[in-house]
Amino acid sequence: MQYDPELGGLIYQAASAARRVGGISFAGGYPDPALFDVDGLAEAFAAMFRDSARVALQYGERDGQPALRELIAAFESADGARVDAGEVIVTNGGQQGIELSVRTLTRPGDTILLDSPVFPTALQVFHLAGLDGRSVRTDADGIDPEALESMARRHRPRLLYLVPSYSNPGGTLLSVERRREVLRLAVRYDFHVIADDPYSRLWFESPPPASMLAVAAGIDGARERLTQVSSLSKLVAPGLRLGWMIPPAGSRRELLFAKQASDIHSALHTQHAVTAYWKAGHLERHLPAIRLAYRERARALVAALDDVLGERVEFVRPGGGMFVWCRLPEVPDTRALFDTASAARVFFVPGVAFYPRDPDCSTMRLSFATTPAEQMRDGVERLRLALDGLAKKN
Amino acid sequence: MQYDPELGGLIYQAASAARRVGGISFAGGYPDPALFDVDGLAEAFAAMFRDSARVALQYGERDGQPALRELIAAFESADGARVDAGEVIVTNGGQQGIELSVRTLTRPGDTILLDSPVFPTALQVFHLAGLDGRSVRTDADGIDPEALESMARRHRPRLLYLVPSYSNPGGTLLSVERRREVLRLAVRYDFHVIADDPYSRLWFESPPPASMLAVAAGIDGARERLTQVSSLSKLVAPGLRLGWMIPPAGSRRELLFAKQASDIHSALHTQHAVTAYWKAGHLERHLPAIRLAYRERARALVAALDDVLGERVEFVRPGGGMFVWCRLPEVPDTRALFDTASAARVFFVPGVAFYPRDPDCSTMRLSFATTPAEQMRDGVERLRLALDGLAKKN
Repeated sequence: MQYDPELGGLIYQAASAARRVGGISFAGGYPDPALFDVDGLAEAFAAMFRDSARVALQYGERDGQPALRELIAAFESADGARVDAGEVIVTNGGQQGIELSVRTLTRPGDTILLDSPVFPTALQVFHLAGLDGRSVRTDADGIDPEALESMARRHRPRLLYLVPSYSNPGGTLLSVERRREVLRLAVRYDFHVIADDPYSRLWFESPPPASMLAVAAGIDGARERLTQVSSLSKLVAPGLRLGWMIPPAGSRRELLFAKQASDIHSALHTQHAVTAYWKAGHLERHLPAIRLAYRERARALVAALDDVLGERVEFVRPGGGMFVWCRLPEVPDTRALFDTASAARVFFVPGVAFYPRDPDCSTMRLSFATTPAEQMRDGVERLRLALDGLAKKN
Repeated sequence: MQYDPELGGLIYQAASAARRVGGISFAGGYPDPALFDVDGLAEAFAAMFRDSARVALQYGERDGQPALRELIAAFESADGARVDAGEVIVTNGGQQGIELSVRTLTRPGDTILLDSPVFPTALQVFHLAGLDGRSVRTDADGIDPEALESMARRHRPRLLYLVPSYSNPGGTLLSVERRREVLRLAVRYDFHVIADDPYSRLWFESPPPASMLAVAAGIDGARERLTQVSSLSKLVAPGLRLGWMIPPAGSRRELLFAKQASDIHSALHTQHAVTAYWKAGHLERHLPAIRLAYRERARALVAALDDVLGERVEFVRPGGGMFVWCRLPEVPDTRALFDTASAARVFFVPGVAFYPRDPDCSTMRLSFATTPAEQMRDGVERLRLALDGLAKKN
């Protein structure tokens, strides 16, 4: 089965059905707006208007405001990664970093390998670029290096795209050994890696291993083949559309040319305000509250899945992020379950949307980010009712 | 001579030399930051934080906030153009509208016809898309329909790109007869038109003719071949990166797919704040002040060119916008003049940057937007000194 770009719409359909009908929604991929630091942001925008409005409202530099790039470089410098502000390009969310990378690195017909399942809006980019997307076997520790090597040998990919920490939708965490192995394979088989990293700060018990950038610092040739992409969408607010990419030095000139052609530069008033917000310490101060809320919700959802569905569901216990990826062996296609679930007023995204081809249609994505912990059991009970209803129908 | 993408950098080099050296700059393409309505915008952002922060900071719709699209639709509805909010796509400045259009409408090798001279950041898009860009003869009334027809017949273009009102850099205004003729030719030779319209509200004595959208409403088949692109960069502030496109209905689906793949959607907090700004009447209230300031500066520059340089310079007297496009018959390449002018501390952008190929290197762009009227004569005197110095050297 080939990729159908309309499937990306399933997420939006599921989320909007949930809004329309009410009930309990595991469908959104959205952070919880109740956790937005509205006061801190309002203060930061007011500071921008007070201190630098006539600069911040003017045209700016295509790679982003220098002070913001300094903050990002420091944020990404850890565990041996030394990022210089001159390596950072500010983008409109992480999405634009993916899109610009793909546009400058690939030609139609190139092969891109993917961890599995995959973020659908990234799939849209690969589809538009005419790439041949192929999923690599992935388990709870992330993409499997043996499978990756065998596919790299066979398909000579131009690119590998993955979400190393708390992936959307898989909820997997790439182990540090595998991070090393993935980057060694990138060097050996000469492919480029896009490490999409919006969730690594949303850990529950302990932080994830060293970032791909940090791991690449210890492997000859790896840094030249790695682009790390991230954003503030899940840490501050997605409406800001504020992200960044840290590409290899050799790609920078072409990327800046493409960025400028796309939209001259990212909105400067937002960059100034976010700089003020970040410098005032709001970001670091606010992160623990988000971690705590998501951890509590993840635990409640996992407990409910264990208790209510037991062996009817297989899933990865997430160590961070926003998602639980489920497999329901008794359901051939969760799109059919979606209909009976809607009637029971519970919503999720059918798994078919998360594959470049040959989907495992028994899967589904549950987001726990916006559902109160005390509603998790009720939500999963409704899922069980829907499952029972579907079983009766078939 | 083929297009050299590095030439786009000339604008930034010229503007940054002007900032470094001081003196008088006609080099920037920037609006005057002293004219930004900082108070009105600060109020609008504060209103957004007060009234709709948790919505405005969340993910939004890929085509833009409905209330903003309503305002844009009303703004663009005049002289027989009836634009529905459902036709509008909010973009990151006008630039993204150009880029998305080109990406969805063309394939590498397609021919694009251009009015002449051309906005260089648009040229970057055409270059990246692998298009064959060809300039069409253009005079003070805009692109010449006879020349356009002969080139349409010969080259079978996929696209025509033009700035109908007060073009950057040409300062030309496409007459209403030519607007009709251009759109009739688009239907007859089946090419698509991108009408880039950021300056039409910046008229000096009287408004420009009916927009291309309005003219298209009276020509069978024209609306299906026209995309109008515009932005608030010159009317409110470029740092906001807030623009829009009004494409044909048949392109909408594909454009939204590309927009979503590019950056999910344009920043929502800015859309909410700009909606508040616009609804409070600030935009309409503020426009006359910008028009007045630019009119006064344009008049002063034109008078100084007449008085000081006389027949040594040929130029179009602008009826609006921000630019005077000059030709200096005695100068084979204004890049050489740029060096002697820098020594006299006056700056401009050499004309070579504004052509897809075969540039007329005797040309240059002067921006009057940020230079006080009382400095215009001094600036042009310095240009004369530079011209004299160059003449002596040769």
